[in-house]
Amino acid sequence: MSIKRKNRLSIDALYKGVLSGDKVTLSRAITLTESTLSEDQELATELIEKLLPYTGNTIRIGITGVPGVGKSTFIEALGVKITSNKKKLAVLAIDPTSQRSGGSILGDKTRMETLSSNPMAYIRPSSSQDKLGGVANKTREAMLLCEAAGYEVIFIETVGVGQSEVAVKGMVDFFLLLMLAGAGDELQGIKKGIMEMADGIAITKADGNNIKSAKMAKTEYTNALHLFPPSDSGWYPKVHTCSSLTDEGIEDVWNMIKNQVKHMKANGYFSTNRESQNTQWMDNIIIEQLKSDFYSKKEIKSTINNIKNEIRDGKISPKIGANILLQTYFKK
Amino acid sequence: MSIKRKNRLSIDALYKGVLSGDKVTLSRAITLTESTLSEDQELATELIEKLLPYTGNTIRIGITGVPGVGKSTFIEALGVKITSNKKKLAVLAIDPTSQRSGGSILGDKTRMETLSSNPMAYIRPSSSQDKLGGVANKTREAMLLCEAAGYEVIFIETVGVGQSEVAVKGMVDFFLLLMLAGAGDELQGIKKGIMEMADGIAITKADGNNIKSAKMAKTEYTNALHLFPPSDSGWYPKVHTCSSLTDEGIEDVWNMIKNQVKHMKANGYFSTNRESQNTQWMDNIIIEQLKSDFYSKKEIKSTINNIKNEIRDGKISPKIGANILLQTYFKK
Repeated sequence: MSIKRKNRLSIDALYKGVLSGDKVTLSRAITLTESTLSEDQELATELIEKLLPYTGNTIRIGITGVPGVGKSTFIEALGVKITSNKKKLAVLAIDPTSQRSGGSILGDKTRMETLSSNPMAYIRPSSSQDKLGGVANKTREAMLLCEAAGYEVIFIETVGVGQSEVAVKGMVDFFLLLMLAGAGDELQGIKKGIMEMADGIAITKADGNNIKSAKMAKTEYTNALHLFPPSDSGWYPKVHTCSSLTDEGIEDVWNMIKNQVKHMKANGYFSTNRESQNTQWMDNIIIEQLKSDFYSKKEIKSTINNIKNEIRDGKISPKIGANILLQTYFKK
Repeated sequence: MSIKRKNRLSIDALYKGVLSGDKVTLSRAITLTESTLSEDQELATELIEKLLPYTGNTIRIGITGVPGVGKSTFIEALGVKITSNKKKLAVLAIDPTSQRSGGSILGDKTRMETLSSNPMAYIRPSSSQDKLGGVANKTREAMLLCEAAGYEVIFIETVGVGQSEVAVKGMVDFFLLLMLAGAGDELQGIKKGIMEMADGIAITKADGNNIKSAKMAKTEYTNALHLFPPSDSGWYPKVHTCSSLTDEGIEDVWNMIKNQVKHMKANGYFSTNRESQNTQWMDNIIIEQLKSDFYSKKEIKSTINNIKNEIRDGKISPKIGANILLQTYFKK
């Protein structure tokens, strides 16, 4: 989507508006980064460069869990805790599925009634991005804009069913996995590999009749995590039970996150990690662009399906297939 | 390394030698694929194309585990089982660390005395490849050559400590993780994410005083794996204890592998998976080449470190860094 020319703010207005923490300007700045219009893109890039000195002094938290785990209410409960500690909170979302369904995990603002009317909180629905794998990069830009606008804690929410968790892991300091107790673990639909990325697990809905099974699940997951090595940061993932209804355990989750950040700042991993995340971001953009240039070439598009069929039928090897396409590309 | 011109076999001699199952010719063919000389590469590619119709009708098994887990003796024990069932076995290795150490996990052939003197088995030390991420692709080529030479079961061994497991997972039908009981799990050094890729775990050295702790470990890992969803193939990973010393449980591991293959062939996942592995292989070669072309350009090499420093110092964003480099590249 592009922004109507006459409504476009000047870079100076955007810069001042974002820095002053004005939510409307922040939203317009984020929309600008999502625009597919190249002049919008240039403006957005310039804006982020100007705001760069005001970013980074934050805690970035990835939160994932399948639909039904109670993610919205958990985010509300944790968000209330954070904002009542006088910290400003921004909630972003990466939701590649929303492209297909047309919906958005955060599209319905009313889902987070308390937070969305809280002046200390900013909630941004996930963008319905182009399909070219740019969603993650857009989220990084939105994150920087929120940081420049004074938000000290950033949540990045995903749905726990796809590739986006790896992307989120690559842009946050703490990766939190929400799980339900006793829902039949194989039914929870959490993708393989996600549990091993977690810095912590919160078992939600630990209230009423669920308390006992939540505690059992806590033991189970603690034992399971014990079988994994610690994170690269030397941090051992923890498991907590919590209830967004009774508020029980929500503070524990927040303390866990703060402890891990403290741990990482003490051993230097916090900044090392952010540095390598930045390099990774740069590499990602480069690789995305190289791939996008390659696969969007007319000559490649017109050949690639035949090549794939020939590989499938055992007529040529994947290597020859790749060679044919690469020769076509570099000859262009 | 390149092959001395006068010692080079004709493509016809290689073709016939490999097809006849001659081990010396097979070794020379694999060496050819590893050559950095472009004429060797062309010859190797041509050879693989000719042999392609004779490949694929095999079971491909990835085996990983850290040093000390008893990988060599396990492979010997399982290998004896397989070859005594009149199946020919080839053992390949992916060992990126050998590039650095100069050694090779399979370099010392005497490590597998029984197998290496077995006419039904072929053991290939890992190649000391160039650093351009080509190791995995070379292993795929070696695998196809072994298949054309009549080897019906292929082992691809890795050390379980790095990125190569993801590559191996992408080229095998069954991914087996070897673990030690009671060694202090965090000391085992298995990288995060590897356990979740496993189709099965074998707990080694389950003999003598270890039997009890191995059985306990089996329960623990079974419970832990139960927390994960099944594989994409619908297969639930299994855990077995085994001893290469007493041969106890080795047959169970082999039966587990055969059952999983049967399961995947029945639901069609076996061929679907191989197809998508082939497409992935083609994409990997393309992306490797695009990256290699990009990062090896003189203009990129002379700029990139400055860019990284400026990103680290917060002077520019990773996006601007990427943009500068991309502009340099595409203008060339």
